[in-house]
Amino acid sequence: MVLPISVSTMRATAMTPLFRLLILFTCLAWNPSSSGSSPGKPNFVLILLDNIGKEWFGSEGSLEHRTPHIDQLAREGVRFENCYASPICSVSRVLLLTGRYPFRTGWTFHHDAGIYGGGNFDWAREQTFARILRDQGYATGISGKWQISNFNDPGQENSLREHGFDEFLITPGGRQDSKYWDPMLNENGVNSLRKGTYAPDVFVNFAIEFMRHHREQPFMLYLPLTLAHKPFTPTPDHTDPNASPQELFANSVEYADRLVGKVAKSLDELGLRDNTVLFVTSDNGNEDNISARTQSGLVPGKIYTMAEQSINMPLIVNCPRLIPGGRSGSLADYSDLLPTMAELAGIPLPTEHPIDGQSFAAWLRGNDAKPPRTWIHTALQDERVIRNERFKLYASAGTPDKFFDLKNDPQETRNLISSSENDVSTARRQLESILKSFPEDAPMGFEPQSITAREFRAKKQAGSTEKPEAQ
Amino acid sequence: MVLPISVSTMRATAMTPLFRLLILFTCLAWNPSSSGSSPGKPNFVLILLDNIGKEWFGSEGSLEHRTPHIDQLAREGVRFENCYASPICSVSRVLLLTGRYPFRTGWTFHHDAGIYGGGNFDWAREQTFARILRDQGYATGISGKWQISNFNDPGQENSLREHGFDEFLITPGGRQDSKYWDPMLNENGVNSLRKGTYAPDVFVNFAIEFMRHHREQPFMLYLPLTLAHKPFTPTPDHTDPNASPQELFANSVEYADRLVGKVAKSLDELGLRDNTVLFVTSDNGNEDNISARTQSGLVPGKIYTMAEQSINMPLIVNCPRLIPGGRSGSLADYSDLLPTMAELAGIPLPTEHPIDGQSFAAWLRGNDAKPPRTWIHTALQDERVIRNERFKLYASAGTPDKFFDLKNDPQETRNLISSSENDVSTARRQLESILKSFPEDAPMGFEPQSITAREFRAKKQAGSTEKPEAQ
Repeated sequence: MVLPISVSTMRATAMTPLFRLLILFTCLAWNPSSSGSSPGKPNFVLILLDNIGKEWFGSEGSLEHRTPHIDQLAREGVRFENCYASPICSVSRVLLLTGRYPFRTGWTFHHDAGIYGGGNFDWAREQTFARILRDQGYATGISGKWQISNFNDPGQENSLREHGFDEFLITPGGRQDSKYWDPMLNENGVNSLRKGTYAPDVFVNFAIEFMRHHREQPFMLYLPLTLAHKPFTPTPDHTDPNASPQELFANSVEYADRLVGKVAKSLDELGLRDNTVLFVTSDNGNEDNISARTQSGLVPGKIYTMAEQSINMPLIVNCPRLIPGGRSGSLADYSDLLPTMAELAGIPLPTEHPIDGQSFAAWLRGNDAKPPRTWIHTALQDERVIRNERFKLYASAGTPDKFFDLKNDPQETRNLISSSENDVSTARRQLESILKSFPEDAPMGFEPQSITAREFRAKKQAGSTEKPEAQ
Repeated sequence: MVLPISVSTMRATAMTPLFRLLILFTCLAWNPSSSGSSPGKPNFVLILLDNIGKEWFGSEGSLEHRTPHIDQLAREGVRFENCYASPICSVSRVLLLTGRYPFRTGWTFHHDAGIYGGGNFDWAREQTFARILRDQGYATGISGKWQISNFNDPGQENSLREHGFDEFLITPGGRQDSKYWDPMLNENGVNSLRKGTYAPDVFVNFAIEFMRHHREQPFMLYLPLTLAHKPFTPTPDHTDPNASPQELFANSVEYADRLVGKVAKSLDELGLRDNTVLFVTSDNGNEDNISARTQSGLVPGKIYTMAEQSINMPLIVNCPRLIPGGRSGSLADYSDLLPTMAELAGIPLPTEHPIDGQSFAAWLRGNDAKPPRTWIHTALQDERVIRNERFKLYASAGTPDKFFDLKNDPQETRNLISSSENDVSTARRQLESILKSFPEDAPMGFEPQSITAREFRAKKQAGSTEKPEAQ
């Protein structure tokens, strides 16, 4: 863990023992799966931030002080010490949406369908949490960045509905389409240029209207904001276009936090807070020219590598009435959100094909003392990583080649792959045996044309084992 | 030939014998290839209309009276009785740009790169007439519809310059981007929404500015207008949005003609007419719900089939000082334009890979009595067609399966593939032997995702030999 942080401090300040007991009692009484009626089902709001490393979140030990609203949600909610995403946007998103590891979905390469075309996230092959919830009566919406369907393709016109989203407002994803000011947006199938607006504001306004409109029925809102992905851009609060990349990024993080706060406040105002589970996370780390001060010192960003800054993301879950707050779990990964939402909604998982995620719903409710996981996994291209609380194993093209003791070597400077020390080699063998149990990568279904995918293929062809440049 | 038309009438009215002699004399004196100096090189303006069948052109026998300006260019210039394009936009365009048949470029399937992504017209593999001319000192520009690069792909940002176009104004090609009113346009790499403008006007204004700017040096301007491709849309001259598709289309043809006239007039005004060779053609036929009255009766449109209405396109070449007008040639196809321009410019053809086109420059100049071709060819998917003046042979997946006597059966109702009649079978064997000399289709280099390409693959997989629906 890169950013050790004292959880006990937060726990102590956040709640008195009596208050916690009260909440636990409420949770034990709340059992939507047995009620059978829709009104008992919780709503879900999943806020996915874009390319903001953990080192920027106060809740995770950042000293940048840019995330007061998120920090408050973490204090009143729960968080994970270690939650693995993938180190790149589209791979993280498919993993998150499906609850299935890249080796199953085939989505092991970055592919921005709106940019490169040639292939799409396939509803005939994969099922999202939105579809699972929608098919059980949830109103579903997405507002923000989708990225994995090419909306220019007439066959993809209806893809968001096919994937389970009844209502949508998204960036169609053309390369020249702005993610911020004057965005081109696709609202329920119709593109329009929103002159004079700032896309993250438009997304959040749409989200709030969606929640208002559906406040009488269970809903799931997926809110993948574009903040703070490149290009680093002035926000409505900090308009200086000549600010440094570091300042622009920091201001974007601050604005993202402000919008998270706005969503939380709207839940209060709409009377939805007590029955809405709010998730806040970020899809991967940020560029290495952006650094953040933390309790562990200055931390440079990482993206597109398997370093912890790239893949170990904040995951905060908040619903004070349903989820006893002030706790932290150790391990989760992005595959877990789908089964967790399904269990909280009392919906059995589809059985057509394997879900890799493990529901941490019982821990959220306070029924289990710990989340279920003993290891977490992520992958990109032909690299796979698995870790437990202390150790992290890398395998490249199927061969385990790096092993680190994160507790004593968080910077991963000493490769212990050949260590014969007893507890080290025991842990390595355990993680190796899990990695070995994973199947080969399923085919992606098309040849991705992203720059990194092309570079990877070119290097494979040239026989090099170097990794492609970050993109 | 679907639309027989008396050329002798036009010839008689267009020029007196003395005037023709004068022009022939001028042409014999004009020999840019021997002068060696740029000022002697002619300019080229190639106007490519979009989905307008031959039955709409007065010069080709239409009685719709929508093309007075084009008809005048045909009278003062030359035309071809039969010029083969391909029956679909992108295949025609690649053929036109490269002078190479689809079996060489691999571009046998429709692929709209801005819509489907996943693959692009590859400058490492193909060379356009623009690049050949640019590399020999021509100023080059394109204004209109390009279609075969995905400009969302960062690797394609510079594709038009790589393909030989110094300056460009194009529709970036997103599916929701308007081809007509309020278009999103990419001008030299920068997208902007042109609110309140009509794209064909913007294209022609850019074209005229380009010609004005480069009037002191040889230039080549490629002007692929979006008119009259779907969606059928009111023009600045006919603004009724409730007009029928037939009316909207006819008005669009009329507007296209008006713009062709505007370009010709600008050549006059800029003093460029005497040294500028103007080509006018259309990439393929139009939808079959649009019909035109002609000297041969009412002709319904055809597109995406190998019927003559789909593939036999007008080709008019006009430069009264350099090209003795009032003549018509029999056979040409889209591969011929590249070598013709190269010869007119005195530029040797590149020798890296075969060009299929045959230059008709000597005929244009009046040096040869006839253009060089005895047969013309086109292809789409696994269907190939070859014809001479009278007969037309089809081959499907390599097997000749249809043979028609177009002189006596222009509607292709009687398949003579098994005829043992002497002149029929002799002609068939001749055309078969040419088809047999063609190589297999080169790979396209990527799997095209257009609806028609997908349908083709699906039907191939299902073992059906039916053709996909028109798109």
